[in-house]
Amino acid sequence: MPLDVVSEQRAFGGTQWVFQHVAPSVSCTMTFALFEPPAAERGPVPIVLWLSGLTCTHENFMTKAGAQRVAAELGIALLMPDTSPRGDGVPDDPDGGYDFGLGAGFYVDATEPPFDRHYRMRRYVEQDLPAALAERSSLDWQRLGVSGHSMGGHGALTLALREPDRYRSVSAFAPIANPMDCPWGQKALMGYLGGERDAWREYDACELVRRGARHEALLIDQGDADPFLEEQLKPDALLAAADHAGLAIELRRRPGYDHSYFYVASFIDEHLRWHAAHLT
Amino acid sequence: MPLDVVSEQRAFGGTQWVFQHVAPSVSCTMTFALFEPPAAERGPVPIVLWLSGLTCTHENFMTKAGAQRVAAELGIALLMPDTSPRGDGVPDDPDGGYDFGLGAGFYVDATEPPFDRHYRMRRYVEQDLPAALAERSSLDWQRLGVSGHSMGGHGALTLALREPDRYRSVSAFAPIANPMDCPWGQKALMGYLGGERDAWREYDACELVRRGARHEALLIDQGDADPFLEEQLKPDALLAAADHAGLAIELRRRPGYDHSYFYVASFIDEHLRWHAAHLT
Repeated sequence: MPLDVVSEQRAFGGTQWVFQHVAPSVSCTMTFALFEPPAAERGPVPIVLWLSGLTCTHENFMTKAGAQRVAAELGIALLMPDTSPRGDGVPDDPDGGYDFGLGAGFYVDATEPPFDRHYRMRRYVEQDLPAALAERSSLDWQRLGVSGHSMGGHGALTLALREPDRYRSVSAFAPIANPMDCPWGQKALMGYLGGERDAWREYDACELVRRGARHEALLIDQGDADPFLEEQLKPDALLAAADHAGLAIELRRRPGYDHSYFYVASFIDEHLRWHAAHLT
Repeated sequence: MPLDVVSEQRAFGGTQWVFQHVAPSVSCTMTFALFEPPAAERGPVPIVLWLSGLTCTHENFMTKAGAQRVAAELGIALLMPDTSPRGDGVPDDPDGGYDFGLGAGFYVDATEPPFDRHYRMRRYVEQDLPAALAERSSLDWQRLGVSGHSMGGHGALTLALREPDRYRSVSAFAPIANPMDCPWGQKALMGYLGGERDAWREYDACELVRRGARHEALLIDQGDADPFLEEQLKPDALLAAADHAGLAIELRRRPGYDHSYFYVASFIDEHLRWHAAHLT
């Protein structure tokens, strides 16, 4: 499938791209962003896939995180997909919520009508996105890390715990760490997957760890003034599951930081350097 | 006048504030942003006033430029006002343009009805904003620099050329350098000040330089892929005026960069270090 260039802009000596393509897994046209650092002109560079949170598009991280600066310095590409299918005919939350439907794909493959036709964001991220860029010689898919924020932190953790050899490093800012046990996650998993909770388990980082999933380079980040910490995010549940399973997970707590992009921007430099240490 | 706190968020070890206040010069409630670096907890810090461009609010630079990181490192506060009066009863462009009225105050004091009641953004920036923060002991108004982008670059240049002792350093990204001789500027100056061109001259950097204005720390920045360069921005007119007047102006040209915040973000680090060298 061809990639259409939506925009191409110089940034930090590299190039900030926005592309569109027809994506078979989600049966619609998808938009995503790619930052190529200056080093990409000389040969393939490692990739950090960034998964955004509720209400976001490809644009939020691209414009608000300030990540291109350090990615340019480190010679890492940033790949930033949208958070849900979009367009005419894509069903939204019937209740009009921000936490389901458009902007809230939760990186699952929906099985429940009417969402099963378009809401296959897991497959989109795992298959369509690499396929769309397969011929781009600047990108080294053998050196792939994943990171994300909130719902996207959940996406990063579950993708990497299911395929630790494919995603060589995973970090998550304020992830929804135990979606089966929080209101955001339960609404999404019920809506996309139906009431059979066994089907939810591969989309819950705690459950994956309990069932033996492992990752050697896994970093969690959490602000302690995050208003969603107790009810929605629950990093301590993941720490407990990991502890019980004998898995080492590093949690960096940030005193006074909330859930916003000011928080992400404050620590993205640290995360990208950590990814680079695992990818380069 | 009291300041109302709209939001207070931790960022880069400092605090990102958004405030509202009733501003007498513009006869309305104004919103502005202030970033205080960690050093502000220990004593007064220098200030860089940032003036934004057409269509912006206090928010664009705050969320898109990534400036807090280096401001935190350098111990500089960032002060980010809105670009026009706002609210019920504030007249907008009768033609609905983005380049006049709301979001387009041009940092002038309007004299033409119906704009003369609210559109006094020069006085707002020069008087109301410092007055609103006068009792804030974290800020050192004796060490004040000014920067801005596009319309805000014009604002920064004209403020600093009129009062070089007050603004000890001035830098401008892609400024509207000769508003009397470009469509954006002519529309704004005609609309706010009327047809008597003599009244326009104190709002045109080229005219100020021709009339003897001087500044010892003045830096211009310009991307050479900026689509507004030839018709609207005209930095070469300012260079020519400065050359004729015997004034040294440094212009840093950026190959391949456009007019966006990716361009601003790419070089804000360099600008703030330049300001710091003059302010600290």
